[in-house]
Amino acid sequence: MKVLVAQLDPIIGDFSGNIQKIIHALAHAQKEKADVVLFPELAVCGYPPEDLVLHDHFVTSCEETLQKIIPHTKGLMVLVGLVRRNLAHGEKALLNSAAIIQDGKIVGFHDKALLPTYDVFDERRYFEPGTEFKTWVWKGKKIGVLICEDIWQHAGYVGDTRYACDPVLEYQKLKIDLLLNLSASPYQYQKSDIRVKVCQKAAKTLKCPVILCAQVGANDQLVFDGYSVYINEKAELCQLAKGFEADLMMVDLNSKSCMLSFKYDAIGDLYHALVLGTRDYFQKQNFTKAILGVSGGIDSALTACIAVEALGKENVYALAMPSKFNSPSSLKDAQVLVKNLGIELDVVHIDGIYETYLKTLTPFFQGKPLDITEENIQSRIRGMILMALSNKLGYLLISTGNKSELAMGYCTLYGDMAGGLGVIADVSKTQVYMLSRWINREKEIIPQSTIDKPPSAELRPDQRDTDTLPDYAIVDAVLQAYVEDLMTPEEIVNKYSFPLELVLDLIHRIHASEYKRRQSAPGIRVTKKAFRVGRRYPIVQKWM
Amino acid sequence: MKVLVAQLDPIIGDFSGNIQKIIHALAHAQKEKADVVLFPELAVCGYPPEDLVLHDHFVTSCEETLQKIIPHTKGLMVLVGLVRRNLAHGEKALLNSAAIIQDGKIVGFHDKALLPTYDVFDERRYFEPGTEFKTWVWKGKKIGVLICEDIWQHAGYVGDTRYACDPVLEYQKLKIDLLLNLSASPYQYQKSDIRVKVCQKAAKTLKCPVILCAQVGANDQLVFDGYSVYINEKAELCQLAKGFEADLMMVDLNSKSCMLSFKYDAIGDLYHALVLGTRDYFQKQNFTKAILGVSGGIDSALTACIAVEALGKENVYALAMPSKFNSPSSLKDAQVLVKNLGIELDVVHIDGIYETYLKTLTPFFQGKPLDITEENIQSRIRGMILMALSNKLGYLLISTGNKSELAMGYCTLYGDMAGGLGVIADVSKTQVYMLSRWINREKEIIPQSTIDKPPSAELRPDQRDTDTLPDYAIVDAVLQAYVEDLMTPEEIVNKYSFPLELVLDLIHRIHASEYKRRQSAPGIRVTKKAFRVGRRYPIVQKWM
Repeated sequence: MKVLVAQLDPIIGDFSGNIQKIIHALAHAQKEKADVVLFPELAVCGYPPEDLVLHDHFVTSCEETLQKIIPHTKGLMVLVGLVRRNLAHGEKALLNSAAIIQDGKIVGFHDKALLPTYDVFDERRYFEPGTEFKTWVWKGKKIGVLICEDIWQHAGYVGDTRYACDPVLEYQKLKIDLLLNLSASPYQYQKSDIRVKVCQKAAKTLKCPVILCAQVGANDQLVFDGYSVYINEKAELCQLAKGFEADLMMVDLNSKSCMLSFKYDAIGDLYHALVLGTRDYFQKQNFTKAILGVSGGIDSALTACIAVEALGKENVYALAMPSKFNSPSSLKDAQVLVKNLGIELDVVHIDGIYETYLKTLTPFFQGKPLDITEENIQSRIRGMILMALSNKLGYLLISTGNKSELAMGYCTLYGDMAGGLGVIADVSKTQVYMLSRWINREKEIIPQSTIDKPPSAELRPDQRDTDTLPDYAIVDAVLQAYVEDLMTPEEIVNKYSFPLELVLDLIHRIHASEYKRRQSAPGIRVTKKAFRVGRRYPIVQKWM
Repeated sequence: MKVLVAQLDPIIGDFSGNIQKIIHALAHAQKEKADVVLFPELAVCGYPPEDLVLHDHFVTSCEETLQKIIPHTKGLMVLVGLVRRNLAHGEKALLNSAAIIQDGKIVGFHDKALLPTYDVFDERRYFEPGTEFKTWVWKGKKIGVLICEDIWQHAGYVGDTRYACDPVLEYQKLKIDLLLNLSASPYQYQKSDIRVKVCQKAAKTLKCPVILCAQVGANDQLVFDGYSVYINEKAELCQLAKGFEADLMMVDLNSKSCMLSFKYDAIGDLYHALVLGTRDYFQKQNFTKAILGVSGGIDSALTACIAVEALGKENVYALAMPSKFNSPSSLKDAQVLVKNLGIELDVVHIDGIYETYLKTLTPFFQGKPLDITEENIQSRIRGMILMALSNKLGYLLISTGNKSELAMGYCTLYGDMAGGLGVIADVSKTQVYMLSRWINREKEIIPQSTIDKPPSAELRPDQRDTDTLPDYAIVDAVLQAYVEDLMTPEEIVNKYSFPLELVLDLIHRIHASEYKRRQSAPGIRVTKKAFRVGRRYPIVQKWM
């Protein structure tokens, strides 16, 4: 039996575009004499469609698209994900389903039983859980079908959730020959192999092959990394689809070759995730060109490298906007960077505008001394210049702030935070350095002096980030411990031996800058817990 | 039997502050010889605590606070809402519970059975539904306890959700003498009496009195309006607590006086909701003073009125920032407004900064003609000036954009959209006029000329909103039909006889400006469907 794993990159709600991709895969399957074609979760409408599914005509479009697919399924068993109406009882009016088509007929549906409602997932907001586990016979094989999370409970990788049901055990009772899983599971740093482990655990229990078809591509903040999986009945990894791009992977269950091991490069994958997140945010909205500010610092340098990889060097326009507070070496670093990348750079001096602001505003400052206000004015002048060029030229502004800054509030609303997409908004400063060294692994793209110099916002004379923040190693340790791992202050102190006062201060800063993040550009999510998309906190609260 | 309904205004996570309010209510109850004290849902930690509940020590604080309450309950039956751990089976590790205390002893818990997971609610993200309905005997009465949504299913007011269980019917089987409900139910325009109807429906079925204790106060975007309810066994409305402020309402079940009718002023309540939303956003964060831009237009005039009511006139600082494109009458209107309100006004002319920007930027504009870029520059200069004064003086900037503008994208990111709180961000232009006339009902506060003149952003010569938008009556009809009522384009055409092309264009604009709203200031929610807090759509999508 041959299974075509159609690792597609749908666009949310693009029914006409998505069906073209689906029909192309079906034609390929027929040409290559596949028996089964497996698509990702919600392939018809893209994942996650969010509140679009609450529109009745969106669901109608899903069901109509399914009807249009059927004529293309001659001779095949096809499993394709869609939203459909829940006509039975239950809280919610919709189901997250796999339509099961055999040779031009819908023979039934599997409805997703485990509905993740944590972190970035909100499936209980829309869907009623399925409760039935049926088998489908095709060409002599008894096949079980699951959707994404359905297979995860068995491996114990569902965070704090403890579903009452384990669908893998349900299929163990039914003694199946093959398990197929339709997935849309976002990328997460250092977890590229987790889906392999999840499938291996199921194969071990079921003593049958497991094939998982993953969505690929980025939708808003989420990046889907692909890497669809074929595990044989001995729970060995036999095939992997490409990472970070669409792929049609043919799995021949009769083939004996196997014993692949999944070697991935954690930093390389992180880079590819950011590139894909950037590329899809542009392409899926029909944007071609990006504009960004380059300061000579490491964050904007990294962001520029990612943008060039994602969009092509001819589509990235860099602006340096020095003031009297910038060291001349910063501009030089920026110039070396753009030369290494082969991108266009313009230089706009901001001192004139800055002086005009001060002249206009000082009479209203009630004689108060210089403070963060003047720093923010500089940052906002830069944001405004970038936005003006973005508006005039039709380029999309990408912002260059990292996760550590956003955590600490070490960033200016409407200033360096301006932009349509936060390329490295979920990348800690520690990871920024790791990525920069990785980019330079063969030749120097990011100037070494950019990497070596102490971080500075250069908004006042001789400023350094460490004037107001602890070392980023400390910030990032607390960031991961508190935000990603939900550790208590005491646990953090015990783990790292930081003073309690310091830990509490950093946690306080994380909460106190929630209001800034509420207005930040959507950032590409790459960690276990990204601000905003998977982390939802009140602004007004007095807990910590 | 006397029941003290403690309609409190907790702050999220402010355990020490919230317990003071709880203990004060308990002392009052003892002094006034109450038998029962009823608190709101999650009174211990405030509603909604969002992801704070995922921190184990947050839950510990809830449980510790409960222990501290117990010594103050002598002689009383007390029902108080908190988050607690789910030690039984089920998906989620937490419960949304009412602790039931009798004379210093916890006698049990009611766990919320119906967990709203739609619109602004995400309770399935955190909580496992309760499944048991017990009765509690106190002073000869058999009492049933429900939490908020638990009572709504019976009246059929739970939107598209169809819960499998109807807790009111469960209590019907148990034949109770009194039903108590702990609530935290947000205000919604023209729905002030809905909780009365919900309680009446339950009283009718149960043939017993129903008392509902509501949370009051605003938390981030949600406003809780209070109006706690006592319905007698004949399903008559007998008592109502105050709207929009904390209240301790004593209900005497033996009293015969009744037959109250709930008359509310829809526009007056809308105004009070916006005032409370503004006041609590400031007070709960220890901000005193607001700054805002006043243009002479109706949106900023209304916002200024609300701010003055919420914060006091001495705490509102207005800035007029005219350019050469503003008509002199606009500044005059602004001056009359601030005089009527008794607030401080400064005037900052922006032409100097504007010209400096143009001089600096024009060389980079590639010879392109004047367009929206130059309009946005003006708007952003104003945003920056306001933010500079906000930073320097420690005043919180409130933004003045309305819901119709945010729907259409007729607003400038980092310009007029700048601010910490969108006071009227969920108020349509139609409602802006209604509120302005209501404010002027006794004497002219908002200049009549502000109300009468055609809306204009005044960013280019003789600009009017209708140059680029249809009449607001049309915009607002489509806004309500599509965003609030999820009608299809065809249904909207059928209802209003607008051309289909116009309707599709407006719907397209709503989706196309999602990216702007993702970075808008949090707005006070007052309608059935507010952008962002209760409406979650992808930016990148190709549906409409």
